[in-house]
Amino acid sequence: MDYQRLFSEIAIELSEIDDLGNVASYIPELQNVDPKKFGIHLSTIDRQDYSFGDAHEKFSIQSIAKVLALALAFELEDDQLWDRVGVEPSGSPFNSLVQLEYEKGIPRNPFINAGALVICDILVSRLNNPQQEFLEFTRKISGNSQIDYCSRIAESERLTSFRNAAHLNLMKSYGNIQNDIEAVLDFYCHLCSIAMTCKELAQGYLFLAANGVNPITNERVLRGSQTKRINAIMQLCGFYDEAGEFAFKVGLPGKSGVGGGIIAIYPGHYSIAVWSPKLNKKGNSYRGMQILEFFTTRTKSSIF
Amino acid sequence: MDYQRLFSEIAIELSEIDDLGNVASYIPELQNVDPKKFGIHLSTIDRQDYSFGDAHEKFSIQSIAKVLALALAFELEDDQLWDRVGVEPSGSPFNSLVQLEYEKGIPRNPFINAGALVICDILVSRLNNPQQEFLEFTRKISGNSQIDYCSRIAESERLTSFRNAAHLNLMKSYGNIQNDIEAVLDFYCHLCSIAMTCKELAQGYLFLAANGVNPITNERVLRGSQTKRINAIMQLCGFYDEAGEFAFKVGLPGKSGVGGGIIAIYPGHYSIAVWSPKLNKKGNSYRGMQILEFFTTRTKSSIF
Amino acid sequence: MDYQRLFSEIAIELSEIDDLGNVASYIPELQNVDPKKFGIHLSTIDRQDYSFGDAHEKFSIQSIAKVLALALAFELEDDQLWDRVGVEPSGSPFNSLVQLEYEKGIPRNPFINAGALVICDILVSRLNNPQQEFLEFTRKISGNSQIDYCSRIAESERLTSFRNAAHLNLMKSYGNIQNDIEAVLDFYCHLCSIAMTCKELAQGYLFLAANGVNPITNERVLRGSQTKRINAIMQLCGFYDEAGEFAFKVGLPGKSGVGGGIIAIYPGHYSIAVWSPKLNKKGNSYRGMQILEFFTTRTKSSIF
Amino acid sequence: MDYQRLFSEIAIELSEIDDLGNVASYIPELQNVDPKKFGIHLSTIDRQDYSFGDAHEKFSIQSIAKVLALALAFELEDDQLWDRVGVEPSGSPFNSLVQLEYEKGIPRNPFINAGALVICDILVSRLNNPQQEFLEFTRKISGNSQIDYCSRIAESERLTSFRNAAHLNLMKSYGNIQNDIEAVLDFYCHLCSIAMTCKELAQGYLFLAANGVNPITNERVLRGSQTKRINAIMQLCGFYDEAGEFAFKVGLPGKSGVGGGIIAIYPGHYSIAVWSPKLNKKGNSYRGMQILEFFTTRTKSSIF
Repeated sequence: MDYQRLFSEIAIELSEIDDLGNVASYIPELQNVDPKKFGIHLSTIDRQDYSFGDAHEKFSIQSIAKVLALALAFELEDDQLWDRVGVEPSGSPFNSLVQLEYEKGIPRNPFINAGALVICDILVSRLNNPQQEFLEFTRKISGNSQIDYCSRIAESERLTSFRNAAHLNLMKSYGNIQNDIEAVLDFYCHLCSIAMTCKELAQGYLFLAANGVNPITNERVLRGSQTKRINAIMQLCGFYDEAGEFAFKVGLPGKSGVGGGIIAIYPGHYSIAVWSPKLNKKGNSYRGMQILEFFTTRTKSSIF
Repeated sequence: MDYQRLFSEIAIELSEIDDLGNVASYIPELQNVDPKKFGIHLSTIDRQDYSFGDAHEKFSIQSIAKVLALALAFELEDDQLWDRVGVEPSGSPFNSLVQLEYEKGIPRNPFINAGALVICDILVSRLNNPQQEFLEFTRKISGNSQIDYCSRIAESERLTSFRNAAHLNLMKSYGNIQNDIEAVLDFYCHLCSIAMTCKELAQGYLFLAANGVNPITNERVLRGSQTKRINAIMQLCGFYDEAGEFAFKVGLPGKSGVGGGIIAIYPGHYSIAVWSPKLNKKGNSYRGMQILEFFTTRTKSSIF
Repeated sequence: MDYQRLFSEIAIELSEIDDLGNVASYIPELQNVDPKKFGIHLSTIDRQDYSFGDAHEKFSIQSIAKVLALALAFELEDDQLWDRVGVEPSGSPFNSLVQLEYEKGIPRNPFINAGALVICDILVSRLNNPQQEFLEFTRKISGNSQIDYCSRIAESERLTSFRNAAHLNLMKSYGNIQNDIEAVLDFYCHLCSIAMTCKELAQGYLFLAANGVNPITNERVLRGSQTKRINAIMQLCGFYDEAGEFAFKVGLPGKSGVGGGIIAIYPGHYSIAVWSPKLNKKGNSYRGMQILEFFTTRTKSSIF
Repeated sequence: MDYQRLFSEIAIELSEIDDLGNVASYIPELQNVDPKKFGIHLSTIDRQDYSFGDAHEKFSIQSIAKVLALALAFELEDDQLWDRVGVEPSGSPFNSLVQLEYEKGIPRNPFINAGALVICDILVSRLNNPQQEFLEFTRKISGNSQIDYCSRIAESERLTSFRNAAHLNLMKSYGNIQNDIEAVLDFYCHLCSIAMTCKELAQGYLFLAANGVNPITNERVLRGSQTKRINAIMQLCGFYDEAGEFAFKVGLPGKSGVGGGIIAIYPGHYSIAVWSPKLNKKGNSYRGMQILEFFTTRTKSSIF
């Protein structure tokens, strides 16, 4: 299939539809992004790459980084990881403390904020220098030494992260956070600040489409069965309370970030990263979801 | 692969593990089922069939019937169906009224009780003789005229369905139920009372693995894209608050019933029905989930 | 104190403030009431009476009747009543099913709808002819044979009471409703339809200010200690989630109804009934609360 | 009435009933208290005092101090205080974050933890040296320069106050905390650590029974109307989700602490402090509630 042409067609079609979302505004660094940015990158497991638009421009991947944090924690802890965080969708309209209180400090899954904070706590316990080692892990699995944190964004997030501090304190009151709250929060804010291009994202997450081995680097990241499990969690929990909508319309596992990026995985075939900064009411890229719906419909790619 | 032998191996392996569940007890007809029943049936889209154990014995499919009700309503209403019921996981531990109240009478998805009741309301509105026509639909898509309601079970359910009546009344107070409550409840209780064998289940639901056409009857049930959407909903919502666990361990879309049955779909490959009456705490067949986990692990079948 | 003059002053003062509420609109009979109605009646335990405005016009007392239902059930059941309904404030912004589900069908108190429905269930069990006997009880304690149901309102409520039916069904699923749902609902709708004037209300509820004996009829309604307990429940639960506001500003136990009436009790001194149909957002008479705040401030009457 | 004799009778009667509660155990300093302690002190507004048992032994007043913090904040802020904290019962079984999230960081009332933390934030903003000035206020209103913090308890609480830190962070995310979280938490932990005897408590809180002026010192603490409002809040919110039970059985406004103390106020008559360390499941002194129920029943004191 002529993916390049398909991307152009999608871009034209979408240009005729209003982009109704709003750029994330809680920190200036995200708010100042050009809302018209529009990037797509497709990486297939047989090592073909297709870029479109702003695919080579770095943006803040935000929550998409939670997938890599989960991958590293899963590698380190294997299934004992699930003693501290669940694998169920949360059903909550926002990153809520309600469920966390009812369920005594065990977050529903690793992609809601509370769950990602537990993953960070695990990495802070396990790694000597969490920030540096996590960055190296990210660089290694994507075969790309250019990937880095954006310290400006990390600091900005740190200054407004009262709600995440509330999550951490609540979980600590239940014994599900072991490290100092400031240390975990600091690591978490760095994690979310990673900047990547669509191309880097698609290539870095390609191991999830390829049974755990990155076909570009031939580096094994996880066992095949672990990869399937991460894909399953992405499918059920990757889009907050829009996971059903994404499964329904796009039909692939994926993960979004408030920077406007989305990664989606077609196991056995490809990974695709899209970027469009305006978010819908659920906090997922408005146009990004449309791109993926168009793309998977035209290419008839769906795991279902 | 020698499926017959694989089934035997799974049966032997499971016989060494305690079956820790409990048979559903809220109506006598379910409580009196022999807890040792154990059936498996696999139907592939290239028309091969493999049975094991009690695969030819009828049991109460209960909530598994909600998939067929959804299929029929989806055929009749197409996407306007989603004005009245969502596609998101509920995140609730039981068939709760809490979310329904917060979300003003719109159920999260068609598989929680509230959602299935809305589907029933739609069918009661759309069909002249809902009970008869639904039965004919079920018989047609499975190419099996032997399928029938169990009126004893339907009546028994009817007598204890105060909670479902609460759901209906609450939704009616929000304007999301159009028919008489008794009529909808009666239809719903009949729906849940359908008795099928594992073989009938696997063959009847095979259209979901075959892009909407039942390969046995060559009957088109739904458009391919609609089938994918039902599979997506099953994946995210088919096991109440154990959907994540099922996706994580089994890796296929599926639906369970409190009669101890589970149907699972491997799109493009097969459907598989299992039956073991003891339920885990979440209300899903304890052993049935194990059978499917073993089966998909050994056969390396997973959509992820 | 010259109460008559005080009432005039309050009326003048309030006439300079906008009446910001809205008349209840869920049934036509309430919606069509003249929103300008304004009545006050004060009955002291030494048998003095002061009327103002529309104090002699009948209106639908609605939930104010729940106090009498509680009084009769308390007389019949004494403290075993509290096995089936609590005495705690609900903290809920409306008559919610959420708490009822979390607390397994035991309503928080007898004044939220669920609690009043349990009280009705008890009366239906205990009385041979609940409607007739309840009416006689009401007439007897108020020494007034003119009090009656408004069948038009009762029927109108009955047609829109899906939410109350939801409460009843949910409680029945937990075993906390013993009678037929229709019978309880019918009795409840009659209860709420009772029409009384401010004068009838103040005189009928005067026993609550007089240690259980109505000073007008010298009829003992309840033991003194039971009266105190009803007053305590009114104080904590009489105004839904505005109970604190009422205690804070008015400082007396009381009960409101969506017909725009409020009864308040100053134990050892008086009962006072006010009527003004427009309701604030919490469903309590907007002006009625103001009248009582002015009145208790000027007369320095407060139990605190 | 011979109060001294009444206290003896109550003590004898209670000695025949098992004390079924448990001493608070979350910090060692509370856990090590002798569970058999039993003190009562009654102070009347005409300056009579009656002590019984361990009435002259200091104990940790814990949440009872929230009443004084409220009094001081109310004096400083007057009614603008209510922009930041409500006056409604919470209806929650524990010091929950659930409601706080639903209600966007505005606590229900000043006696749940979240509300007391907002009061502390106000005092930290308003006072130059909050700890010192609050202590002086407490000493002044009780005419007792011996009252002090217990720094051991304050430090111990500080080390386990993750849940309070969660409350503070959540409220800060909604803009309802203005100061540094550590500073507010530190002040709050000191507040809760105040040690007083039953006699000191009864005498210190006597202004609430005397229209705002302490009859012992003739010091005006608050305006009469403000005193009534604090009494109203105590009545509705002083015992967490046992406020109704306390109003129902004791019939007076009051406030409990996990140190096993309770203060109750009979406006126009007396204040009474009791101490018995074992707590019931709701966190209120098991025996303390019994003492007060017996006492108010025998003396027929009830505001209702």
